[in-house]
Amino acid sequence: MGEVIARLAMSLDGYVAGPGSGREHPLGIGGERLHSWVFGLRTFRRMQGMEGGVGGPDDELLAEHVVRPGAVVMGHGMYITGEIPWGEEPPFHMPVFVVTRHPREPLVKQGGTTFHFVTEGPERALELAREAAGGKDVSLAGGADLVQQFIRDDWLDELLLHVVPVLLGDGRRLFGDPGDLGGPGDPGGRHVEWHKTQVLDSPEVTHIRLRRKPTAS
Amino acid sequence: MGEVIARLAMSLDGYVAGPGSGREHPLGIGGERLHSWVFGLRTFRRMQGMEGGVGGPDDELLAEHVVRPGAVVMGHGMYITGEIPWGEEPPFHMPVFVVTRHPREPLVKQGGTTFHFVTEGPERALELAREAAGGKDVSLAGGADLVQQFIRDDWLDELLLHVVPVLLGDGRRLFGDPGDLGGPGDPGGRHVEWHKTQVLDSPEVTHIRLRRKPTAS
Repeated sequence: MGEVIARLAMSLDGYVAGPGSGREHPLGIGGERLHSWVFGLRTFRRMQGMEGGVGGPDDELLAEHVVRPGAVVMGHGMYITGEIPWGEEPPFHMPVFVVTRHPREPLVKQGGTTFHFVTEGPERALELAREAAGGKDVSLAGGADLVQQFIRDDWLDELLLHVVPVLLGDGRRLFGDPGDLGGPGDPGGRHVEWHKTQVLDSPEVTHIRLRRKPTAS
Repeated sequence: MGEVIARLAMSLDGYVAGPGSGREHPLGIGGERLHSWVFGLRTFRRMQGMEGGVGGPDDELLAEHVVRPGAVVMGHGMYITGEIPWGEEPPFHMPVFVVTRHPREPLVKQGGTTFHFVTEGPERALELAREAAGGKDVSLAGGADLVQQFIRDDWLDELLLHVVPVLLGDGRRLFGDPGDLGGPGDPGGRHVEWHKTQVLDSPEVTHIRLRRKPTAS
């Protein structure tokens, strides 16, 4: 069975989007800064249907994470902010399972992306994505609250963080508020150990690849 | 004139101490995990008056940051939690300026550490520390709220983060709550750019050395 993987760009102070993020302004104020390292890369441009771009270690790392999954899981909020900018040919090119409370027929887009709307919760969305991935990995696209839930419920096998040396000061935190990673009856949160398997430094960003280990006491 | 430098161990989710930190339990629940990489190092052991320990890249990095300062600034909370564990020969071996609201005579300890209690605010403490450092750097020891203020007021030249691959889930955040880095009238916080000058990866920790750049728009 494939793994569940996520990659997220995060500021030094832990934000994945600036303040005021929403449908009008998906990345919030200053949030584009978290992604400036990726825009010129060959793999990113190819995902958007563009030619050219640069190769190198950042690009190789991105390419590896992009070819692994066979399906995507994302939250409703991320879908809502993305549906207009993604346009008629979204950059996924595979089935996408959206965790939502709003039932809706599957939405078939160009280039291999079909959005499936799952109202039975994230565990069911993950189950459907695993089936659709056919042995490949499942990519957890976000948002932050869904990543928190996947960490809390121990469903995430690998987390690739792109740490950008900027302090946004406000916005949407990847790791949320105190206790967001803790289970019921565990108000102090949970001490979750990760195993750091790769660190790749480049001028604009530090990539930290993490894998889950058993919870330490 | 010397620089103002700080080094802090931080969890992946941004905490410098676990929940429940205070005089009884300075690092909070799980907070020792942030420092496990340092306890065996030769330089750390020497600071504590112990012999032995291991060398290597982690130790060299720590040693470099330890010899640079000629004086220390710290907050009252950090002093209160530290004064008992530090004992009669605290590990600073230089003048320490404590930002506090409680006037108190200087406290001379063994081994070169004298605690000076400054009631005129952090800027005055920094000024006194610069004078005492005599051209060497000033080390900002913490806590998190004082580091936030130094960042907000642009007094910090270099920040060495020791990022430990663990999620604490709760505790004391280095970068605080949204807006803690923003000035008055800037409720959205402030976008602060750093220049990443070194990344050193080792099995237990990723060291990220940052220097201030002009604020981006």
